[in-house]
Amino acid sequence: MSKWMQQWSTEAVGPHDLKITERPMPQIGDHEVLVRTLAVSLNYRDKLVLETGMGLDLAFPFVPASDMSGVVEAVGKSVTRFRPGERVISTFAPGWLDGLRPGNGRTPSYATLGGVHPGVMSEYVAFPEGWFAAAPKSLDAAEASTLPCAGLTAWFALIEKGQLRPGDRVVVQGTGGVALFGLQIAKATGAEVIVTSGSPEKLERALALGADHGVKRLTEDWVERVYALTGDHGADHILEIAGGAGLGQSLKAVAPDGRISVIGVLEGFEVSGPVAPLLLKSPVVQGISVGHRRALEDLVGAVDRIGLKPVIDKRYRFTEFREALAHLDRGPFGKLVIEF
Amino acid sequence: MSKWMQQWSTEAVGPHDLKITERPMPQIGDHEVLVRTLAVSLNYRDKLVLETGMGLDLAFPFVPASDMSGVVEAVGKSVTRFRPGERVISTFAPGWLDGLRPGNGRTPSYATLGGVHPGVMSEYVAFPEGWFAAAPKSLDAAEASTLPCAGLTAWFALIEKGQLRPGDRVVVQGTGGVALFGLQIAKATGAEVIVTSGSPEKLERALALGADHGVKRLTEDWVERVYALTGDHGADHILEIAGGAGLGQSLKAVAPDGRISVIGVLEGFEVSGPVAPLLLKSPVVQGISVGHRRALEDLVGAVDRIGLKPVIDKRYRFTEFREALAHLDRGPFGKLVIEF
Amino acid sequence: MSKWMQQWSTEAVGPHDLKITERPMPQIGDHEVLVRTLAVSLNYRDKLVLETGMGLDLAFPFVPASDMSGVVEAVGKSVTRFRPGERVISTFAPGWLDGLRPGNGRTPSYATLGGVHPGVMSEYVAFPEGWFAAAPKSLDAAEASTLPCAGLTAWFALIEKGQLRPGDRVVVQGTGGVALFGLQIAKATGAEVIVTSGSPEKLERALALGADHGVKRLTEDWVERVYALTGDHGADHILEIAGGAGLGQSLKAVAPDGRISVIGVLEGFEVSGPVAPLLLKSPVVQGISVGHRRALEDLVGAVDRIGLKPVIDKRYRFTEFREALAHLDRGPFGKLVIEF
Amino acid sequence: MSKWMQQWSTEAVGPHDLKITERPMPQIGDHEVLVRTLAVSLNYRDKLVLETGMGLDLAFPFVPASDMSGVVEAVGKSVTRFRPGERVISTFAPGWLDGLRPGNGRTPSYATLGGVHPGVMSEYVAFPEGWFAAAPKSLDAAEASTLPCAGLTAWFALIEKGQLRPGDRVVVQGTGGVALFGLQIAKATGAEVIVTSGSPEKLERALALGADHGVKRLTEDWVERVYALTGDHGADHILEIAGGAGLGQSLKAVAPDGRISVIGVLEGFEVSGPVAPLLLKSPVVQGISVGHRRALEDLVGAVDRIGLKPVIDKRYRFTEFREALAHLDRGPFGKLVIEF
Repeated sequence: MSKWMQQWSTEAVGPHDLKITERPMPQIGDHEVLVRTLAVSLNYRDKLVLETGMGLDLAFPFVPASDMSGVVEAVGKSVTRFRPGERVISTFAPGWLDGLRPGNGRTPSYATLGGVHPGVMSEYVAFPEGWFAAAPKSLDAAEASTLPCAGLTAWFALIEKGQLRPGDRVVVQGTGGVALFGLQIAKATGAEVIVTSGSPEKLERALALGADHGVKRLTEDWVERVYALTGDHGADHILEIAGGAGLGQSLKAVAPDGRISVIGVLEGFEVSGPVAPLLLKSPVVQGISVGHRRALEDLVGAVDRIGLKPVIDKRYRFTEFREALAHLDRGPFGKLVIEF
Repeated sequence: MSKWMQQWSTEAVGPHDLKITERPMPQIGDHEVLVRTLAVSLNYRDKLVLETGMGLDLAFPFVPASDMSGVVEAVGKSVTRFRPGERVISTFAPGWLDGLRPGNGRTPSYATLGGVHPGVMSEYVAFPEGWFAAAPKSLDAAEASTLPCAGLTAWFALIEKGQLRPGDRVVVQGTGGVALFGLQIAKATGAEVIVTSGSPEKLERALALGADHGVKRLTEDWVERVYALTGDHGADHILEIAGGAGLGQSLKAVAPDGRISVIGVLEGFEVSGPVAPLLLKSPVVQGISVGHRRALEDLVGAVDRIGLKPVIDKRYRFTEFREALAHLDRGPFGKLVIEF
Repeated sequence: MSKWMQQWSTEAVGPHDLKITERPMPQIGDHEVLVRTLAVSLNYRDKLVLETGMGLDLAFPFVPASDMSGVVEAVGKSVTRFRPGERVISTFAPGWLDGLRPGNGRTPSYATLGGVHPGVMSEYVAFPEGWFAAAPKSLDAAEASTLPCAGLTAWFALIEKGQLRPGDRVVVQGTGGVALFGLQIAKATGAEVIVTSGSPEKLERALALGADHGVKRLTEDWVERVYALTGDHGADHILEIAGGAGLGQSLKAVAPDGRISVIGVLEGFEVSGPVAPLLLKSPVVQGISVGHRRALEDLVGAVDRIGLKPVIDKRYRFTEFREALAHLDRGPFGKLVIEF
Repeated sequence: MSKWMQQWSTEAVGPHDLKITERPMPQIGDHEVLVRTLAVSLNYRDKLVLETGMGLDLAFPFVPASDMSGVVEAVGKSVTRFRPGERVISTFAPGWLDGLRPGNGRTPSYATLGGVHPGVMSEYVAFPEGWFAAAPKSLDAAEASTLPCAGLTAWFALIEKGQLRPGDRVVVQGTGGVALFGLQIAKATGAEVIVTSGSPEKLERALALGADHGVKRLTEDWVERVYALTGDHGADHILEIAGGAGLGQSLKAVAPDGRISVIGVLEGFEVSGPVAPLLLKSPVVQGISVGHRRALEDLVGAVDRIGLKPVIDKRYRFTEFREALAHLDRGPFGKLVIEF
């Protein structure tokens, strides 16, 4: 194995300093594994961290990105969960293994890869074995890399917390990475899926993916359409993209005893909505910020058993990281992946 | 039995027309019971309905108020749940027996006594047997009359939905009817209770009732106090009075994976709050609008077994209904009850 | 409408007295609907009630069978849920609308149609409107008649109580009515389904229906096969047919934190099993006895939206009731239905 | 610090070889803490392991016992959760931090202290920091040592899994360690508690501890007494000691939709019971085998906030370990503790 490797990093917050540098191959401790990166999947959050720092205490040089798949190259002497040659994926929030989330009321935990922890835009990473999960057998490396954040967010909202049932009516807002996972997971669970989008062309692609109904967000009143499509029942579950007054519309569209999962990036937005439907329909409104490793392992198993194929809008090469980041602004249909 | 009875009613929305009138004694159908009213408990909602109509399709003459206790005087021939002489309490939302709430996404159900259904400020009422629950054995009539709305709301939020546990940290906002039930039910479940109030004198009374901590809402930062009192853990459950920016403070004060129950009157307020704690702490935010009859029956059983005594600020006579309504505006400590 | 109708009934417990008789058309009360029967689905329980009475306080002449679909012919003046011409299905346990089951610890409720309540092997039935649910739009009358008991039992076990998730591993024992509904519902939820059967031919048919794996119960160790098929994980959910030592095998086959739903007829059997896996894997073992009307309505909606088609082994004519009962003993593949 | 310490150990399965030996003070790794033992609490399981090995792959010399409290003496350089001087308690099943239990269907995990892992009858122990939880502030060392197994088992059954509510009717079988914790936790949650025991004298002590009712198991029919005490409702939750036909009685005594938590030692017993109440009352029957660290931390917090004082029947000195083991056979009232 070479003593050197390449990685993308930056010396300061702001978009200008990002570049490929040569670094010494990382050394592994007793509880760590060395993983050769095969693919990295991007989230809009990665761009925000690079451009604004998001108020996080970043260490420089800072390596961006949180979601990767790779192959184990070497393991520390105390490692028991993985062996060299096995394919793995990273976990977004390494300390959260199962059950309740870490952190407390004053200081919620936001210790993620490509944030407080180092990122994965690197040919090799050396992390504690507990930070990885086994990759699904049925996906290629690029597809597998999309699970740790986008895939798990949708799964955690719909399945782990939402306990979705066959026949439920689900509204998925948009056609980004989390949204398309939401669409696919909901369909795999037997739900009826309504996708909203500002783009008729993306709605067509969502319908081709299995969505039951598409609503043109710019020209249709989506709440009225949900009433019409469900015989006034409303939506049992809404995957709501956080920000602005969207929650108010979701509170109108939700069914009594339904659920609104608020997902999205942390840009200081407010959520707001009217009190009356919140009281009279008594829905659960719950913010979802990715999920724990056990749920990721559940998702990996489900992906293999139900044959779910993540939607990758475009695959980029390692050297094209900047182009991929630029693409994030244009609203990809599903995920963007860097193949190493 | 006399052929006539007295009741409070009004011929139009607005506060001016309310008066005592003589009416024929109601006749009961096969599935109905005739109940002689012993006590009626008031909610702020009763005042809103009288003064604004709350957009409801009221029938006139309109009899106000929803919560009563009484004694069964006669039963229809198909009645199986009650016999003459038994003490009963009314249910706030008669059609909701157990499980999911009635209504749909477009038109949530708000069919309550003293609203879409007739009210109970009447010496006798004749309703279907399903609209009543057995009264607790350990309470007098005035105390029993406080359970159907205020008591059940607190129970539904903390126990039926909230699954409160001993040792949980609960914040109760204010010292109104629901709040004091919340305080008492939370203490009976072994929780640690923090009460907030603008009135130091009411805080003293809340502490005497068993609250562990009182926070002076006007002069203290209650969120910081919750952090301090819980070692930064935050509140596991917050009974949030709907309206304004309160939700934002509650999102700051809540513990990771905690719960915020939004209760309150339906006055067209917005709720709003920051996205970051909603995502990073992933609390459940759930509106609570009273609850079903089975939960009321659970509460009745619990009241008897744990010895809970509802807090009645003042008892009024039948003729003092207007004075009692005026008292509602002054913010009672607990409940106001009309004794017949 | 004719003043007379035909129905199957018997004057005494025991198989000999069953015959078709002419009866006056039933009259409806204010809260009742008159339903013309289109199809009746049989359960093994129907045979037991006829032959043994099952200890129930039956009224004679006794009309057997609990599950029917039909069309509303007339409605009482207080009826609000149905109108003439609408297609409906019966509910198995009429008093149980949602939430907790009726009855108490000493005397569990077993008030079902074709038992304590009258049965449905009758050209017309007149029951309270609350005893019916709307029929699914996507099924014919015979298919719809299979939902109230067999369909709902599987749904209640897997979905309402079991909260099945995509990717879960489900073991379905046998290929009877509940079992095949279990297979179909589990597949619709994205689960991996293992069916066990003594008949290789029935296993083939189960695989054709969508089962992922078949285990020959007589010649294979099904517990070992479950280990092998799941990489030693075990079964997340087992639909266990009550009786004998089957529970012991299920306790061995179940995954940690898994679930065993015990279903079956009430023939006085014991369940038994070893303590060690019950403690160390901490599965939930729960008896399932059909379910409530709200869950039946959920199932009806899901059937329409996921396109589930119940499996009918054979359709009989009204006059062939005895032949259909005899067929029950031979272990049908799915359901037997009488078409009127 | 001395270089030597004393511990109880044995060289072989069987009761005869147990003795105090001098051992070198343990060295700590980077992730480990050195804890000076203050108290060890005994469970009947400890005796079984010593006498039979319970089929476990024990390492010799084998140090018995699983539950201890102590004070941190030194920490490895990577340790973040504890500092020297802090008081801690051990966890019974070290690998299980939160959520689902480890292990799989074929091989359930039973990796506990004083079993597969070393025990704690030792003046000092050196374990990974993750194997400890902070001790409660309100208990002395002996009391704190009773939480990891007996306290957590009762808490996990009643609260974490059982979601006990105020007013629930709870049956606690016996007056052993888990049973008395069950009694105290249930009372702290506002439940009504019925204790059964063969000893009238122990029943008196249980009533003095707060039990609402005592049933003399040898001379009364406890199922009938539960019916009588609950107005035929039955028990919402039964803490069932595993073994023999007890489950059958519990199935009779349980309320519809109630819960039976099966706890106990792993001695190869069968559980058995009749099918009819399992089906018709649909209770959850769940084996409980201690619980995870997060629940232990919840219990610790609750103990401090509700003021729960564990019941210690007798405190022994370090040299009296054999006498304490002998006492286990006589059925202590609550816990036995060795003070160091």
